[in-house]
Amino acid sequence: MDAGYYNGTYKVPSQRYRDWMAFIQKFVADFAGELVEMAHAAGKKAAMFQGDHWIGTEPFLPCYQDIGIDINVGAVEDGVALRRLTDSAGDQIKEARFYPYFFPDVFREGNNPVTESMANWVKIRRAMLHKPLDRIGYGGYLSLANKFPHFIDHVTQISDEFGTYRQHSAGTESAKIGGKVAVLNAWGLARSWLQNQAQDQRFYVPPRPDVMEFVGNNPLECLAGLPFDVEFISFEDILENGIADDIKVIINTGDANSAWSGGEYWGNPKVVTALREFVGKGGGLLGICDPSAHLQNGRFFQLGDVFGLEKETSLTMGRVAQPVKLDGDHYLASCLTGEEDFGNLSYVYSQAHDMSVIAAQGQHLAMTAREYGNGRSVYLGNLPFTMTNARLLQHILLWLSKSENEQYAWVSDAAWVDACYYPDSSKATVVNYTPEVQQVTVTDLSGEKQTITLEGYEWRWLDA
Amino acid sequence: MDAGYYNGTYKVPSQRYRDWMAFIQKFVADFAGELVEMAHAAGKKAAMFQGDHWIGTEPFLPCYQDIGIDINVGAVEDGVALRRLTDSAGDQIKEARFYPYFFPDVFREGNNPVTESMANWVKIRRAMLHKPLDRIGYGGYLSLANKFPHFIDHVTQISDEFGTYRQHSAGTESAKIGGKVAVLNAWGLARSWLQNQAQDQRFYVPPRPDVMEFVGNNPLECLAGLPFDVEFISFEDILENGIADDIKVIINTGDANSAWSGGEYWGNPKVVTALREFVGKGGGLLGICDPSAHLQNGRFFQLGDVFGLEKETSLTMGRVAQPVKLDGDHYLASCLTGEEDFGNLSYVYSQAHDMSVIAAQGQHLAMTAREYGNGRSVYLGNLPFTMTNARLLQHILLWLSKSENEQYAWVSDAAWVDACYYPDSSKATVVNYTPEVQQVTVTDLSGEKQTITLEGYEWRWLDA
Repeated sequence: MDAGYYNGTYKVPSQRYRDWMAFIQKFVADFAGELVEMAHAAGKKAAMFQGDHWIGTEPFLPCYQDIGIDINVGAVEDGVALRRLTDSAGDQIKEARFYPYFFPDVFREGNNPVTESMANWVKIRRAMLHKPLDRIGYGGYLSLANKFPHFIDHVTQISDEFGTYRQHSAGTESAKIGGKVAVLNAWGLARSWLQNQAQDQRFYVPPRPDVMEFVGNNPLECLAGLPFDVEFISFEDILENGIADDIKVIINTGDANSAWSGGEYWGNPKVVTALREFVGKGGGLLGICDPSAHLQNGRFFQLGDVFGLEKETSLTMGRVAQPVKLDGDHYLASCLTGEEDFGNLSYVYSQAHDMSVIAAQGQHLAMTAREYGNGRSVYLGNLPFTMTNARLLQHILLWLSKSENEQYAWVSDAAWVDACYYPDSSKATVVNYTPEVQQVTVTDLSGEKQTITLEGYEWRWLDA
Repeated sequence: MDAGYYNGTYKVPSQRYRDWMAFIQKFVADFAGELVEMAHAAGKKAAMFQGDHWIGTEPFLPCYQDIGIDINVGAVEDGVALRRLTDSAGDQIKEARFYPYFFPDVFREGNNPVTESMANWVKIRRAMLHKPLDRIGYGGYLSLANKFPHFIDHVTQISDEFGTYRQHSAGTESAKIGGKVAVLNAWGLARSWLQNQAQDQRFYVPPRPDVMEFVGNNPLECLAGLPFDVEFISFEDILENGIADDIKVIINTGDANSAWSGGEYWGNPKVVTALREFVGKGGGLLGICDPSAHLQNGRFFQLGDVFGLEKETSLTMGRVAQPVKLDGDHYLASCLTGEEDFGNLSYVYSQAHDMSVIAAQGQHLAMTAREYGNGRSVYLGNLPFTMTNARLLQHILLWLSKSENEQYAWVSDAAWVDACYYPDSSKATVVNYTPEVQQVTVTDLSGEKQTITLEGYEWRWLDA
């Protein structure tokens, strides 16, 4: 408990809490290390299952490597969960354990287990493109799965696709575009690729609310399948070491008060100054939902000067509302398809005449962009996961890193098709998210444009 | 300025600010009193125009009466502004100054000044029913108005309607229904009938934002035309004197942080306890928008136990969302027409199994009701002014004061028609808000049902 609340991961962790975590971490790593040594002494390998919790064995923290684990097994239902597995450091074998489990809740008469599996698989494989995955697996009662022969066929197909992926990607990474993207929150590395859902997602899905339906409906899921180099940094990182030179874009996404937005950290002048300097010197800043939100010094968005925005918290009600005018000439306006989903918008208003409104619903700003010093900023009201939103995020991240005019090979600009290539194996791939036929035009390594038509759900490999 | 913000009326006033107001008030009242004495000595009357501001001459505060003013003139554009004029204490003549002023912004070629005037008049006259108004007037350049003969005809018609109103109402009040309703905020009496708009209203009106369009689009405008006895009380009143026995329903409406919701006052256990006791002993509590909102002790809605609700501020994200199930059998559900407008809904969720959801949009609760001890509570996401919303508010206030089964004479249950009667003059009246023909069925004093059909905008008087 903390301050009357369950001390969930969505809460900004206190120093005391972080100290306690470090203490537990040390104890568990030491003890687990002894167990792994026994396994190794017996000529066996040791695997860690990262499932319901991993108190004391945080896979993203350095001391995890001291344990000596050989295999990380992660329960994976979407792209973010996959990246949580594949992006952690260390030379462990990475094995994804897929849903649905062979349990009677899903494997029952009248239900089709392929439905859930396919919905997961199309998310997972787009995230698989960008960081190597070594193995896949399932769990549960084989006797239950055996009653659903078309599910066995489906698993055969997944296994075949996975085999082809292993062969062509050769355990290497896709080529990345733009600059390095850092997701900034109160946890940083320790909670990399953890679903940091905002209240908008929690209230978003009608009509049958189910906690599993909310998971993944957020900007990180959009990001998980895009060809960007991504890392997670914390406010403490910035306070201790500043912002690394190779970071080109910083994302701050989450609700006010939450660990994801950062809460009281935004009251620290060193944090605010570091971010202003980062953007002023040419960096890109993407704020989603309540970026830099903390009520202090007559402001709520502490970086409102960078975004050219403020959020109405009923303390500036005297202002006269300005007409919302879309900037249709802005580069990012040309990236919109009209199918974007900005969720349930907030009470954000313009505070700068040189801020461009890219999308709005009435008085509610959905997407804005602005130049600040030598850098750029973009605000999004929200960005639930849809393929259209994911493609928009790609355009935004390229614009923020001033790479929007770069010519990248094997990059998709079609909403429903992902593409990338592997420099180390000279292979390229295109994958159709949907059951319908889709088309995508990409530029290959020789600079030639190729238009590729894919069958429903097709995943094709080509020479790059 | 206060804490980096313009110290608007929407901000919770500090003790220092209130002390300063009292100091100015004393000075202005003394000085104005000298001027009034000079006017009286010259055989004249003195009028105070309550227009753009009235620093030091707060008409709702007791020392206003020390000035000796004979006539209060108030600029009136809607029902709330009218009640701000008519509800202040004292035997001053109450004169409404109507919009539009005869200025070139409205009285220009191609514009029809009757449009604005009629939109105001239909709001004003429904509020005029319940507290007596003595005089009406206009301001500006007569030469401009003279260029619009149909506007002169329109003013003639308003004047005739006003004359008839004066004759039949005889300067008396309408009969009231239910119990006394108190609006609780940080200002109380001093800011009675001040438009306490919430951020939802400010962001609500598309497509051309104009500060005048926002004014009045709130729950108080609904209340202004209903036959309830209304007073405004402050948290300081409760702390000093408790809650008066004749108050049957308390309304707390406004955004978190604002003077209207109450901000830090809700952190005071004496306030919270007084409200719980009030409801527990049989009172009614209506919360709109962010009632009792203040982040403290692991709660945001400090009276969430009374409403059976909490607002998600990203500190309780771990909860599992429950399916929203409408309680179609609830008395208040039978009061809905489907035309209600609950504005842009918030992130409020159920925290009590015995709480009834009356209206919702997906996961967003629009209207809920609950029994608490011997009393009742209702929550509304928002209540912009519409006639349908006003009628719903009437039903809610009757239910909260346990008067929903009382038989009241000359009460309207039709959305577009207001009705009331005057015990002192034995007259009743019905008034059509719309340009279309409308019908209303009312019970007269003998208990007979009467169905009355009104022409567009018709205001009819009958024997009660």
